[in-house]
Order: sequence, then C-alpha cells, then structure tokens
Amino acid sequence: MLVDLKPAGKAIPRMKKSMILQAGPPVEWQRTCGPLRGAVYGALMYEELAESPEEAEELIKNDEIMFAPCHEYNSVGPMAGVISASMPVFVVENKENGNFSYANMNEGLGKVLRFGAYSKDVIRHLKWMEKELGPSLELAIKRSDGINLKTIISQALHMGDECHNRNVAATSLFERKIMPHLIETNLEAKVTSRIVKFLEENDHFFLNLSMAACKAMMDVAQGIKNCTLVTAMSRNGTEFGIKVSGLGDNWFTAPAPTPKGLYFPGYGPTDANPDMGDSSITETRGIGGFAMATAPAIVKLVGGTPADAVSYTKEMMNITASKDYSFTIPSLNFEGTPLGIDLVKVIDTGILPIINTGIAHRKPGIGQIGAGIVRAPMECFKKALKALVEKA
Amino acid sequence: MLVDLKPAGKAIPRMKKSMILQAGPPVEWQRTCGPLRGAVYGALMYEELAESPEEAEELIKNDEIMFAPCHEYNSVGPMAGVISASMPVFVVENKENGNFSYANMNEGLGKVLRFGAYSKDVIRHLKWMEKELGPSLELAIKRSDGINLKTIISQALHMGDECHNRNVAATSLFERKIMPHLIETNLEAKVTSRIVKFLEENDHFFLNLSMAACKAMMDVAQGIKNCTLVTAMSRNGTEFGIKVSGLGDNWFTAPAPTPKGLYFPGYGPTDANPDMGDSSITETRGIGGFAMATAPAIVKLVGGTPADAVSYTKEMMNITASKDYSFTIPSLNFEGTPLGIDLVKVIDTGILPIINTGIAHRKPGIGQIGAGIVRAPMECFKKALKALVEKA
Repeated sequence: MLVDLKPAGKAIPRMKKSMILQAGPPVEWQRTCGPLRGAVYGALMYEELAESPEEAEELIKNDEIMFAPCHEYNSVGPMAGVISASMPVFVVENKENGNFSYANMNEGLGKVLRFGAYSKDVIRHLKWMEKELGPSLELAIKRSDGINLKTIISQALHMGDECHNRNVAATSLFERKIMPHLIETNLEAKVTSRIVKFLEENDHFFLNLSMAACKAMMDVAQGIKNCTLVTAMSRNGTEFGIKVSGLGDNWFTAPAPTPKGLYFPGYGPTDANPDMGDSSITETRGIGGFAMATAPAIVKLVGGTPADAVSYTKEMMNITASKDYSFTIPSLNFEGTPLGIDLVKVIDTGILPIINTGIAHRKPGIGQIGAGIVRAPMECFKKALKALVEKA
Repeated sequence: MLVDLKPAGKAIPRMKKSMILQAGPPVEWQRTCGPLRGAVYGALMYEELAESPEEAEELIKNDEIMFAPCHEYNSVGPMAGVISASMPVFVVENKENGNFSYANMNEGLGKVLRFGAYSKDVIRHLKWMEKELGPSLELAIKRSDGINLKTIISQALHMGDECHNRNVAATSLFERKIMPHLIETNLEAKVTSRIVKFLEENDHFFLNLSMAACKAMMDVAQGIKNCTLVTAMSRNGTEFGIKVSGLGDNWFTAPAPTPKGLYFPGYGPTDANPDMGDSSITETRGIGGFAMATAPAIVKLVGGTPADAVSYTKEMMNITASKDYSFTIPSLNFEGTPLGIDLVKVIDTGILPIINTGIAHRKPGIGQIGAGIVRAPMECFKKALKALVEKA
C-alpha cells in the first residue's frame, strides 16, 4: 500500500543530508560508471552541496559524502538510483508484515538524472518535484486510505504491462485512483494543471511504485535460514549483484553485462553503459521480464518477437519456486506468473534470470539511448552457492 | 476526432424535442422489448414530457412521440440506445471525409437507462450528466484541439481492450488526455471532484466514444454502388438488422438472438432479453468481438477461454474484406484486425459475425444482468443477398 510521500531525509530511517543512496551493490567511486557519476553530480548540485561537477568531485574525494546502496535502506531507485535527502520518496507499507519500502519519484523520459543527465533543466525539474509535485501528491495520498499497488499491478498485467519497462496501464490506473484525492486537496488550478500535465505525459510514472511494491514484498523473504530464494538483483552500471535470503546482507557480484536491445536514432551498442538500476527488483518478484508474456507489445521497445516474450515467461518457470496467482497471465489461460528465483534451480538448469531494462549512455550527462533485455550473470549465482555450501 | 459535446437537440441535424432515437432497426411500439420500453419511459420522464410510465404510454399511443433509429441520424447508442433532445451527445468528426457522428454519454453500470431502468435515481443521474458533466466536458473538449479517438483505440488494443465490452484501458487513456483540459477550465473544485470520481468509477466510459468513432468511419463506406460491405449491424431487442453499402438505406432484419454468456448472481438465461444495442458498430468496424484476441481477460466477463478469444478473431478473418494495420494485435505478431464484413464471404463460408454484448433483463425497469457473446443471424445476410441479386 502506498501510504505516504515525503522527503527522503524525513522518510527513510538513517538517511542523512550528506548521504547519497545509489542503485545496485556498493561500488568505490573510482570504479563508478559515467551515468552514475553524472547522477551524483546532479544530486549534489540539486542539494546545493556543490555548484559544479568539479566541486562535486572535490567533496567526494574529501570523503564528505557517504554512499550506500538504496537496497540497504529498504529503498529502490531505477537506473542510477540516486536518492538524496531532499528528494520526495514514496512510502510503501507491507500491511501484512508491517515493513516499509521507499522509492524516488519518476522524473519522466529524456534528459533525466537517473540516466546520468545533470543539466540545469534536470535540476530545475527535480526542484519542481520537491516543491510542488511531491507536497501535492503527499496531500492526495494522505486523503486516500492508501493506494493498493498490488491491485494496480495485478490489473495492469491484464492490460499489456509487465510493470518494469511497460507501465502505461499501471500509470493510467494509478492516475485515475489518485485524481479524485488530488482534486479534493483544493490546490490552485495552475498547480493542479502542471501536475496533471506531467502525469499525462509520463507513461512510466508507475515504474518507481512498482519497484517499491516489489521491494516491500521481497524484504519479507530476507533472512530465512538456509533459504535459497534470491531476494534482490541489482546493478550499479559496474557490477551486477544478488542477495539471497539465507545469506545475510552479503552481495554476490559479477561485472554488469551490457543489454541487447533497440537504440534511439544516432546511438548504438558502443555507446551503451553496462546494465544499471534497482529496477530488477521487479523480476526478482516475478514481474517485468518474468511476466513478459502479459506484455507482447513491449517487444517494440526492447526487441524480439511476441513469441519470444511468451518463451521468456515460460523459461523462467524453470528457475522459480512457485507461481503467483495474484499476478496472472490471461493469454496463458490465467496461469500465474513465475514467482521467486531459486538459486539452486538457476545453478541446476543453467537458465539465467531475464531482465527488461533501459540503456544509458556510458558518458555522464547524456541520458537514455535505448532499451533492451539482459540476463543476470551466472558468476553471481555460483558465488552465492559457494557461500551457501561453506556456511552449511 | 472528438470535437464537441452538446445536447442532442442542438448537435444532431433533424433532431426534435418530441423525438426519441433508439438502437437497432425501426420497430413498432407494440413489438418493442421490455428494456427498450423502460428506457423510453425514462427518457420521456427525464424530458418532463411524462410524469409516469403510464403517461409515457399515453403519449406514445397518441402518436405524440416520433421514434427513429439512431443509425438514421448518424448516431449510435449502446443497449436501448435511447437518445432524447436534452441528452448531451459526443460530436465526432471524421476529419478525412468531413462527416460527423454522435453518441450519448455512458451512464456507468448498474441501474441505468440503457439497460431499461427508469427509477428516480436513474433520471437524477441523467440530469446531472446534462447540467454538470456535459457542459464541463464540453468546455474541456473545446480547449483541446480535438481528441484523437482512433489513436486511443489503437493503443487500447495493445492494452487488453477490444473497445466494446472491455474499455478500461481506453477509458483510462481518455481520462488522462482530457484531464489537463478539464483542470484548465477552472471549474469549482467540488464540480471537478464529482466529475473525476464518476470517471474513476466507470471503466466503460469510453464505450460510447468507441462506438461514435466506428460510426464515423463506417458511414463513409455507405452508398457505394454494388459494394457488398456491411456498414451497420444493430439490434433493438426484438430484431437484428444489417445495412449494406450498395443497398441504400434498407435494413435486412431477423429476430434478435439471445446472447450466451455469464450472468450476475441471481439471474439466468430465462431472464435475458434478446440482444440489443448499436454497440455492434464496433464489430462492424472490426474491433469488439472481431479483435477479441487482443483482450484475453475479457473471457472472465463474457465466458469462454482465452484460446476461444484468439479463435474468434482468426475466424472473422474469413469473412472480412481486409486487415487493418492501424489496429493491430500484439500477441498475433502485430497482425491487423479483421476489417470490413463482406456479405458475400458470410454467405460463402456460413461464418456469422461474432459480437461481444451486454445482457439486459427482459422486463423494463431492472437493468443489466450479465454479459456474453452472440452471432449475427444468417437470415439478415440471406435477405441482403437476395436484394443484391434482384437489384443487379
């Protein structure tokens, strides 16, 4: 349930002003990729801690900024996944288990922080999200009894979304749900107008909510003794990392692979950064690439054929623990989506989890250049298995 | 393109205060079905021409009311399809050909006029649509440059709608498109609030727009010499009628069949009225039942399996003139939807057009009791063929 929206510094426990949360497993600054660097420059300028990328670099070299993975703060962010203290974050509550998760708000497409852009326009837009969009939606969310995200995901899977790289149905359903509450807050008409236009133009607005919902669900599975369930898959643009329920807080990492996909005009594979983002929490939960059979139209974005989309979903059933009948696939006779990656099954079958993903330019400051598909690297799973054997 | 919304009396050429438009081919009052009678009672009370069903009957017996099919006034209405002069109607323009079509607004589900209900609540709701919803949306539509309905249908077919009995995606997309314009009209907050809540709760709001768009497209095909294309299929709850391009304004009719489908709790086939409504203009245009392959989740509403849904679409390709690549089916590798029923192919193959439909109680005043599937009767096509042969 989406229950609140407030600045990360107030919402996320242990979050500090001098802290930057980032996607994926931890990574030393020297090894960070271009788009993550760009996003960090942008966040430090947005927080008015630096006035330029050079000043940002200086701060970082002087150890004045603390970096941490979003995942270790019950949070998730797509692509660079950069969350700083002033950014509004969605607060999602797992009502059954009482735990919370957090995600930043989706900025839209084009030159945006999460793809490594940090121009003045990018920062101005983030300020608008902080000063106007965030507080307005906060009021609307508070007027609701909470918005049930699981219901929206379930419906959207019947409407051609897989809720990772295709979110047009979920975004539309969310907007219909929030709109009556937003209107009731009685904002100035020009404020409502700007918000409604922003939501109208952003078919991916729900992505971050889908991610937060999946995080709130997966965190419950963390820390079960001897349990081989994968509870997180995430990438920082340098490394791909997984977490496993029975293996504590350890990340098992390998070099991040580069997605195969479709590029925007003027760009190609040599421009692509290796894979990045916490958004693969959706596949970890069994939607996104795992539910691609529900979203045949997505192949126009990520490549391949509708038959491939169905094959991926069926293939993933070989490495998952169960099927999820709260998220069903109409075209497969309402079969449940593949639920919960089992480390042992990945090793046994050699089948690697499939992930739908966006592609960032490898240089800071540019942004998104395409979208595609990537497989989690086998090395992560082998390292985790080794740790499991050693622990036993 | 949706270009306007105003009272039928002002929008529809030749519409008069003492006139009632109705779905399907013409039918004498003595032969009208229960739900159409109920809707006419409701409309006459709504227009304050009668104060009770008895007064309404009196007016009709005294020939004070003129009845005509919507179709003969470039209009369409779902189920009873009753349109009276004060009801706001959508004005849809076929920009390429310059012709206009009209449809009433969708009232929502439950006890509604189009299913034959006529209680005080039904009439109060119609008054609200006339006094508040209509004029507000009229302002919003006028602020837009027109809303492209074909684009919305095309997108919605990639989102699990077939735009006849499943409209949740199209409704959501339409609402996102209209909302910025609605906000800019600067209505009182409580007015906007009521409108937004109504739209939030009505997943079928787009149905009437889908119908008007199909009507605007099909009317262009009417009146082509020797052309065997079916330009309208419609039902009044007593008879099913078709029109054929090369056969002028004639209706070719047969008794309306009763749908097979799923019933709301407490109702069954013996309560069902024979099929009714102009909504089969969607199938005539090649969506609705013809595009069921895009909407596998609809079988939960109308019955059958997702495999049946795909079969229906493939079957319809045997009786259609062409495929429509503006309306494609992702799961069938972006195949075009079957476009344009050819009378000769229906006769040759014996395959009858499939229609997704709602089911009304056969008595006036009750309302919807289910949804299902129906086939157009062969007799209509045989009569049309005979007329064609006689004419040649």
